[in-house]
Amino acid sequence: MRYLITIAYDGTNYNGWQIQPNKITVQGVIESAIECVLGEKTPIFASGRTDAMVSAVGQVAHFDAQNLKNDFLGHVNALLPDIRITDLKRVDDNFNARFDAKRKTYRYYFYTGKVNNPYLDKFASHVKYSLNLGTMQTAIKCLNGAHNFKSFCAMHSSVKDYDRVIYNAQLKQDGNLFVFEITGNGFLYNMVRIIVGTLIDIGRGKITASMSDIISARDRNMAGKTAEAKGLVLQSVDYGNF
Amino acid sequence: MRYLITIAYDGTNYNGWQIQPNKITVQGVIESAIECVLGEKTPIFASGRTDAMVSAVGQVAHFDAQNLKNDFLGHVNALLPDIRITDLKRVDDNFNARFDAKRKTYRYYFYTGKVNNPYLDKFASHVKYSLNLGTMQTAIKCLNGAHNFKSFCAMHSSVKDYDRVIYNAQLKQDGNLFVFEITGNGFLYNMVRIIVGTLIDIGRGKITASMSDIISARDRNMAGKTAEAKGLVLQSVDYGNF
Repeated sequence: MRYLITIAYDGTNYNGWQIQPNKITVQGVIESAIECVLGEKTPIFASGRTDAMVSAVGQVAHFDAQNLKNDFLGHVNALLPDIRITDLKRVDDNFNARFDAKRKTYRYYFYTGKVNNPYLDKFASHVKYSLNLGTMQTAIKCLNGAHNFKSFCAMHSSVKDYDRVIYNAQLKQDGNLFVFEITGNGFLYNMVRIIVGTLIDIGRGKITASMSDIISARDRNMAGKTAEAKGLVLQSVDYGNF
Repeated sequence: MRYLITIAYDGTNYNGWQIQPNKITVQGVIESAIECVLGEKTPIFASGRTDAMVSAVGQVAHFDAQNLKNDFLGHVNALLPDIRITDLKRVDDNFNARFDAKRKTYRYYFYTGKVNNPYLDKFASHVKYSLNLGTMQTAIKCLNGAHNFKSFCAMHSSVKDYDRVIYNAQLKQDGNLFVFEITGNGFLYNMVRIIVGTLIDIGRGKITASMSDIISARDRNMAGKTAEAKGLVLQSVDYGNF
């Protein structure tokens, strides 16, 4: 039987999602816990990888197992450190957490100030410059819709198709804390972090090109630097109705 | 000369603000760093104490020192762990960080869910129950204004005057994360945490008495349990114009 799990984790202590030899990864730790409870290796398949230092409140994965007992989640969570499976449900045997994902939502938290803030540092990245919210919000409006996002894809990516659809993107300011939220049908490698880095450069006046010009250029060099991984959170993965 | 400093800290690793023998406290660590830079003991006086596990983004304190060099803040911050002095300014010699405070604003972050969420756990406390936002928001409206808040004061407090003015109190929900913000002219011992504990009990239906009845009772037993310290943040201290 196939099961879907929703997973929350603090990415700070992990070398990202994906299993790698001799590294502590989110996937590796979860698979070890499930193997311990079920007594057999049980690979799990996520909606997508998250990089080192990236957290999640709503990562989704699927796996196959015999009929699970009611206390399965409790047993697995008891073996997990700063990772929790927050939900479990049966899905169709053809369900695929990666390929059936319709939309993903990411958030990126960052804050401004000459000096870093140890409280905000727990979940947000630090930007030393003052930022103009208005110019950033104007830029964000250009992200909505279907575009070729090659300008926002990491150089060494092997992807061929740069077309993605952004359904919603918004930036809110709460004192010196900024929260950027973006929902799309998929994201290129480092795309959210490059968008955020570009927005920060626009907000501080380092980049004066318009966001639509940067998109049109299809040139990674037109965009800003990749924002650091800390601050990025996979908020949710939407599969439509199933 | 008297100086005012604004301080941010992650309270998780400290036994609260106030210096105590053989305990690591925020005040103790800051005074050690300042003593190291200035070469002499320099007591600092905060707007008020914060308990163990309580964080701050805008704690304020004053201290007296000879003319400080321009690089004072940089030197002190370089000696501090998860504490940062984010601002420094000269104030009048009569200024007192505690007695001149006109308003303080606290936030309390909590989230709901059957299972705890390691990402949100970094800054929010976990509530296992479903909460009704509407009933909590109705209750919050009764907090505004001048009241005797004895029902929300820790039993062992030695305070005589329970009258406090609340200028603003609001609760916002963002998915399963709740943020309660309250501004008042001062707060009794554990007052914010008892208010939050009461709101949670109201939100889950455990307390059915109205907030105005709980206030009128002037009886700690009418209110809910004290919410845990984690999740509480001293957001700012307002001194009016000076």
